[in-house]
Amino acid sequence: MSTPFSFSLAATDGRARTGVIDTPRGQIRTPAFMPVGTAATVKAMLPESVAATGADILLGNTYHLMLRPTAERIDRLGGLHKFMNWDKPILTDSGGFQVMSLASLRKLTEEGVTFASHVDGSKHMLSPERSMEIQKLLGSDIVMCFDECPALPAEDSVVAASMRMSMRWAQRSRDAFGDRPGHALFGIQQGGVNQDLRGESAEALTKIGFDGYAVGGLAVGEGQEAMFGVLDYAPDMLPQDKPRYLMGVGKPDDIVGAVARGIDMMDCVLPSRSGRTGQVFTRHGVVNIKNARHADDPRPLDEDCSCPACRNYSRAYLHHVFRSQEMISGMLLTWHNLHYYQELMQGMRDAIAAQRFDDFVTVFHGLRAEGDIERL
Amino acid sequence: MSTPFSFSLAATDGRARTGVIDTPRGQIRTPAFMPVGTAATVKAMLPESVAATGADILLGNTYHLMLRPTAERIDRLGGLHKFMNWDKPILTDSGGFQVMSLASLRKLTEEGVTFASHVDGSKHMLSPERSMEIQKLLGSDIVMCFDECPALPAEDSVVAASMRMSMRWAQRSRDAFGDRPGHALFGIQQGGVNQDLRGESAEALTKIGFDGYAVGGLAVGEGQEAMFGVLDYAPDMLPQDKPRYLMGVGKPDDIVGAVARGIDMMDCVLPSRSGRTGQVFTRHGVVNIKNARHADDPRPLDEDCSCPACRNYSRAYLHHVFRSQEMISGMLLTWHNLHYYQELMQGMRDAIAAQRFDDFVTVFHGLRAEGDIERL
Repeated sequence: MSTPFSFSLAATDGRARTGVIDTPRGQIRTPAFMPVGTAATVKAMLPESVAATGADILLGNTYHLMLRPTAERIDRLGGLHKFMNWDKPILTDSGGFQVMSLASLRKLTEEGVTFASHVDGSKHMLSPERSMEIQKLLGSDIVMCFDECPALPAEDSVVAASMRMSMRWAQRSRDAFGDRPGHALFGIQQGGVNQDLRGESAEALTKIGFDGYAVGGLAVGEGQEAMFGVLDYAPDMLPQDKPRYLMGVGKPDDIVGAVARGIDMMDCVLPSRSGRTGQVFTRHGVVNIKNARHADDPRPLDEDCSCPACRNYSRAYLHHVFRSQEMISGMLLTWHNLHYYQELMQGMRDAIAAQRFDDFVTVFHGLRAEGDIERL
Repeated sequence: MSTPFSFSLAATDGRARTGVIDTPRGQIRTPAFMPVGTAATVKAMLPESVAATGADILLGNTYHLMLRPTAERIDRLGGLHKFMNWDKPILTDSGGFQVMSLASLRKLTEEGVTFASHVDGSKHMLSPERSMEIQKLLGSDIVMCFDECPALPAEDSVVAASMRMSMRWAQRSRDAFGDRPGHALFGIQQGGVNQDLRGESAEALTKIGFDGYAVGGLAVGEGQEAMFGVLDYAPDMLPQDKPRYLMGVGKPDDIVGAVARGIDMMDCVLPSRSGRTGQVFTRHGVVNIKNARHADDPRPLDEDCSCPACRNYSRAYLHHVFRSQEMISGMLLTWHNLHYYQELMQGMRDAIAAQRFDDFVTVFHGLRAEGDIERL
């Protein structure tokens, strides 16, 4: 018998929470950061290396995978876990957000969205029912409702109409998902930066009932202050006993601020994308490895980091391979960034469990303020 | 006390030889294939992964490293081994060949070569003395003489004049190298496809005296038949008790044919470069992973291969990530190709030791004839 999907809170400290999500594919320690494996790979990483950084769960993108290699093909090949050699949990998004940001010739109706692929121009359709079907074919452990959201800033009337359609789509997603023991369906709260609309959305979702709840429609251009403003109230509108997922966030200080406001899960391409562009996250701030100042520097990126990039290489080497456009540059810097993100999550989990999350946050900001590491 | 550099033959079978080169940085089992780490990295591989394929030694390129990050900088940072996190032996070429193929504004005189960098157009000079200095700064374990060779076909008079200058440069290289216990200097035989000139070159080199001897000036456009024609006599002109190195070779059947003719060491970019372009070497021949026929194929590249690409992924996955231009494609296919090459070398070493090299060659060609694996 497989373990059902369940969430247990182990400790809270202020609004910050730590706990465990149990799934048939293993435990997800929260707060959790999910690396993004868009096209069935976390770019520049082997999956065993992703696991070595401490990641318990990956995110896969429905939009990319439905276009190439297609969900049907992945299903024939035994599902996404087998296909990409990752046996821990996978969360898939619904495809809705990326259709809006990447596809062309989009047409949005109550039924769903039709669009043309950014890869080859082919015509496709996504709806709550089709998104549920695709995520099932992929074998996703945590399935996201199909939703829609406007870029911010937007008129309240636009945000409200969009949110209400997303709530109707949430019901259709719930109906289409059906009963799949060991698999979870998460609802997505919308409503922009409007507290009343966030409340209305939370109420609609809670009434339908989900295994977890995402705070959606943030990190879409509103800025950290506005995002934290919403997070000051939005997570508390959602059920306490279910995981809360903030989609597409973010920079390290976004993540710490979100956890402080009661968020349990996050995902972002930032650590992997930055690894390929030479931007490195450390406890002391950001290092831009392309800067000439690193050319002769025998020190590691971070002397206290235990990732392979820091254990085995100098900044001079990392600078050299970045400048030479060698693949090992993206491989090592992505590994470091993902390692740093997971270490940050582990630090927060430990601090919350020990009831010293405020101290953790103080030290986190202190280390960063003291050095822009570029000045060390 | 460090082990001195020495070569011991363990067995011969026909003209094929197997043995061990002892160096202070470890043993090199021969026949040996050396992956190419041009710019202080074997492209798409971490050095621990290169070691995991069974490689005992890497090749570094003097031309690339002198331009970027410069030999002086690598020396200040503790040498090439530390810089690139590879503690086993490294052989460096002299820079001569790549100056001729990559640099611009070349001017060749008895003194050496002046040229402009292909990276930034800066002016540089290479001579026997400067090449020895650079290879010492890099900390190379096996240093190659600075030489020069014309592209084939070429007039005998051109080949002779070039060879004779290379022999004068060999003496200057020997003089400049000096006495460096634990480090080896290899001479390079030239003479194109002319047996008399090959003999004259071998005699000149043997008279100077080196720790090993390369057969140079092949794999420069003459074709396999002409190359094997030279290898039918050239290696036997060189001292029996020193390693013989065939530079820049080659395809798997080139390598087997060279070992059959008494070659102990080889290097080539082919397995790593092909890994990035989707060409895969297997016991059954070449697989072009970009072909649409692989899109739905659940089988590994080679069911009997134990590399991570074959153990963990289907051809369908490898096809998908190649088509999607994901870095993991180059990472996995390079790993496979280097693993295959090292397995081929191990197979030959075992066969020579067991006096069944002819059988090995028969099976090698038989497996390849039976399947173009594309038809399996």
